[in-house]
Amino acid sequence: MSGLIEHTLRGSWTPSGAAAAPLSPHALRWLRQRIGLAETTTPAVPASLVEAPASALPDAARAELADLIGEQHVRTDAAARLGRAGGMSYTDLVRRRSSAEFAVPDAVLLPADPELVQRVLEVCVRHDVAVVPFGGGTSVVGGVDALRGGKTAVVALDLARLDRLVLLDPGSRIAVLQAGMRAAEAESLLAAQGFTLGHFPQSFERATIGGFAATRSAGQASAGYGRFEDMVEGVRLATPVGEWRIGVAPASAAGPDLRQLAIGSEGALGVITEVALRVRPAPAYSRYEAVVVDGWQAGLDAVRALAQGRVLADVTRLSDVEETAVQFELAGSTKARALRTLLRASGVRQPCLLVLGWDAASRDELRRRRAAAARALRGFRAVRLGRPVGESWRAHRFSGPRQRDALLDRGVCVETLETAAHWSGLSELRSAVRTALHRSLRVDGRAPVVMCHVSHAYETGASLYFTVLAARDEQDPIGQWRRAKHAACDAIAGRGTITHHHAVGADHLPWLGAEIGDVGTAVLAAAKDAVDPTGILNPGKLIRPAR
Amino acid sequence: MSGLIEHTLRGSWTPSGAAAAPLSPHALRWLRQRIGLAETTTPAVPASLVEAPASALPDAARAELADLIGEQHVRTDAAARLGRAGGMSYTDLVRRRSSAEFAVPDAVLLPADPELVQRVLEVCVRHDVAVVPFGGGTSVVGGVDALRGGKTAVVALDLARLDRLVLLDPGSRIAVLQAGMRAAEAESLLAAQGFTLGHFPQSFERATIGGFAATRSAGQASAGYGRFEDMVEGVRLATPVGEWRIGVAPASAAGPDLRQLAIGSEGALGVITEVALRVRPAPAYSRYEAVVVDGWQAGLDAVRALAQGRVLADVTRLSDVEETAVQFELAGSTKARALRTLLRASGVRQPCLLVLGWDAASRDELRRRRAAAARALRGFRAVRLGRPVGESWRAHRFSGPRQRDALLDRGVCVETLETAAHWSGLSELRSAVRTALHRSLRVDGRAPVVMCHVSHAYETGASLYFTVLAARDEQDPIGQWRRAKHAACDAIAGRGTITHHHAVGADHLPWLGAEIGDVGTAVLAAAKDAVDPTGILNPGKLIRPAR
Repeated sequence: MSGLIEHTLRGSWTPSGAAAAPLSPHALRWLRQRIGLAETTTPAVPASLVEAPASALPDAARAELADLIGEQHVRTDAAARLGRAGGMSYTDLVRRRSSAEFAVPDAVLLPADPELVQRVLEVCVRHDVAVVPFGGGTSVVGGVDALRGGKTAVVALDLARLDRLVLLDPGSRIAVLQAGMRAAEAESLLAAQGFTLGHFPQSFERATIGGFAATRSAGQASAGYGRFEDMVEGVRLATPVGEWRIGVAPASAAGPDLRQLAIGSEGALGVITEVALRVRPAPAYSRYEAVVVDGWQAGLDAVRALAQGRVLADVTRLSDVEETAVQFELAGSTKARALRTLLRASGVRQPCLLVLGWDAASRDELRRRRAAAARALRGFRAVRLGRPVGESWRAHRFSGPRQRDALLDRGVCVETLETAAHWSGLSELRSAVRTALHRSLRVDGRAPVVMCHVSHAYETGASLYFTVLAARDEQDPIGQWRRAKHAACDAIAGRGTITHHHAVGADHLPWLGAEIGDVGTAVLAAAKDAVDPTGILNPGKLIRPAR
Repeated sequence: MSGLIEHTLRGSWTPSGAAAAPLSPHALRWLRQRIGLAETTTPAVPASLVEAPASALPDAARAELADLIGEQHVRTDAAARLGRAGGMSYTDLVRRRSSAEFAVPDAVLLPADPELVQRVLEVCVRHDVAVVPFGGGTSVVGGVDALRGGKTAVVALDLARLDRLVLLDPGSRIAVLQAGMRAAEAESLLAAQGFTLGHFPQSFERATIGGFAATRSAGQASAGYGRFEDMVEGVRLATPVGEWRIGVAPASAAGPDLRQLAIGSEGALGVITEVALRVRPAPAYSRYEAVVVDGWQAGLDAVRALAQGRVLADVTRLSDVEETAVQFELAGSTKARALRTLLRASGVRQPCLLVLGWDAASRDELRRRRAAAARALRGFRAVRLGRPVGESWRAHRFSGPRQRDALLDRGVCVETLETAAHWSGLSELRSAVRTALHRSLRVDGRAPVVMCHVSHAYETGASLYFTVLAARDEQDPIGQWRRAKHAACDAIAGRGTITHHHAVGADHLPWLGAEIGDVGTAVLAAAKDAVDPTGILNPGKLIRPAR
């Protein structure tokens, strides 16, 4: 069983045993120059100083749950409850650091297996207790906020003990994993059998299999391995009206694909307890490299050529000019100078970094795939930066979230958001979102840093992933970001999807209706009523506001 | 606008202008020997001798519909109504030939565009008239049976006039097509712009874009171009509660993928009026070839190696020993003899034909892909039959359905069914279905011919497609096939999906519940109630029995 990660208010992301990433001296210098920086650090309020409100879980419910899953797995202590109070968005972190009020679950339940999850739901229905399924707790969209939705109490249903590899069918290349298994552990269990799942989102160190399914996750290597939904062969869910098992074949015409209704259901249509996943042989070779293309449009065209030629690298990631400049800057002044010299010599005026990561079963396959990509990139005058830059990206691929504590300590507003659209609409989409963020995040005349990259590419379009750094408005840090996010979402609506891989949660709910229409909204509500007639499942997320 | 195909009772499939395929003398000889054959032909009852029951469409509804879409587009004549009375399954054809009773729509409506389809639905709701969306009429599962579902009347909503290419976005490689456009016409319109959809089911000559989406179709080239659902970027539907537009980006995490709820909705959740589809450049080169592998298990392993190595040919189709023998036999005695000699010399005892069809943008790409497949096939001792056998398969790829009239004339029971499962379960699935069909179709001691092929392969599994030829039980031809189909479906249930690409319709409905469970059944019913509260849409198909 995987060790439960003890959540603390301070260590917002970094799992115990892993190191938080401090800011380097040149990063501090750069931040000071670009957005201003608090001269003194403002560390988070220690966990021990934060009090949890009294638990509202009725005694009868608590006793019944303790009988069912064991006294020690019905936790009402402050540490357990505060540790499952919300996710990992910037506003979550700010709220916790400042000891501001936020919704705290009345208890944390840790059932041991899918059958017990099913029975826990039945108890919660009887006692009218809301249930927030909790995996890695890495939601950045309010997906695990402990909202009561008008119920007597709300519990976090932590799936950490559902951490087994249930079945491996090597011939069919299918692994059945329990929902609470963390991605990193899934990878190491599969690696021991020669397989990989190939799902590497930035949340990899914490997030769980069930969470990936619930949120329609897409990993950094989705170009090669597919989005999470592409890997799902079957799903098992606990629902208030009974267990639900979906998926008996790789493909079917037996009506709508109900797997695709469970994937992205965000705990509102059931608690995912097991997922059957397509796995692949662990690659024997891999290679990460980088090239630079001159200008954003040329970069987009290059990625489009790779996608439409169906020769994408497994990881294909294109940064815009702003993001590329920051990445060079943060690599250190010596490296940055060398890169600038190289690019000037190559005539590149608007460098856009393109990271290409390859996995392969053999050197020969690696060579063939790289050659095919090189053919597709002919005509784009890509300048090779070689492996060090690509490998450096790989080395830091999961470290972004770990730097947030250090940034927050120094008064930086740091957050990300993402969208996707068809190729013909990407430029307008990017401009609109950049404009919205620039306008709304200007503080005392200082412009924010708004960076963008294509994180996932398809034949018909791509995702855009924005990272924002701004001086924090110390009077109203949460309002500051809320207004910016609101402006960005308004810019996205009508131009792209409100979220490409972060899910809807509570934060995107106001914009979902515009995307799926009244009929889509009605269908989701009807599906929810069918599986959760009393509305105990994750109130206020995805389907309807709790308040 | 595409010419409306005039349906006749006799010409069950063959579109006007195309030739029905007669049986060759050696095919007749072989059939006589294997299953017995009626010595005299029993042609179908001519259309002119069949009477349609009086139309039950209320005058008020008819007048309102005529006002809306034009008098001439509300057809109540016998020819129009009989021509939309059911689909193209064996039992459909038998019923029509014998002038047996079958459900006939009370009118055929031909609205001109999506807006009018929406308004037609609103009229039908007001007058409590059931609506059966009608595309190519090629359902083989009772998907377009004119069931009333307790309503006042039932109309066939024929989408033939929705036949426009609405939009082509070449940069994003997306074409928006209206639902009534036939596949063949879509291909030729796209070809004029240098593109292809790449969707080639056996129903290609008749079936429509909307029908493909409604039934989760899979074409013969799905290994290369994907199943139909893989091509769908967006769907527009008319529903009794309003228009529904789904899909704004190639991928999204904005909740469940509602496109995958519309795809496979079989007219029960709305009338699909437009589909946005991913297109690809029309291939400059293509090559069809065939190899033979020794034995079914070796063949399965070979296809699995191609699928899991991700080097499948665009068309990859493996016949079992029985189907291979029949294909050789029907190629004519000279060719059959030559093939047998070749295979004996190569030491192949149990020949299984593997057709590989390649599309490519260049000779070089073709060469590279074939070489990659050849590498994956190393060790399977595949014997090359070369291009003639592959090209012969291509030349006849759509002709199977056209031979059914000739077979029915000669007293043959001929039908197909399909399923899919994961690789580890395919052998048992095939055995169980074969046993069920053999047992149930034995007539007067004569065994049926039961052939099987893998028509679609995936990394985790494959489909199995069965073709059956048997002596017809002239006393009860429909009962004969119903019992066989029932036995086959019972054999499939619990081992694979009840349908891989033919949809549920009325025929598979009794087995759907076992596949998607009580919760899945409840979710579908709830979705239907949300979009079709009075239940006018395609009653008795997919979601609940009409009677």
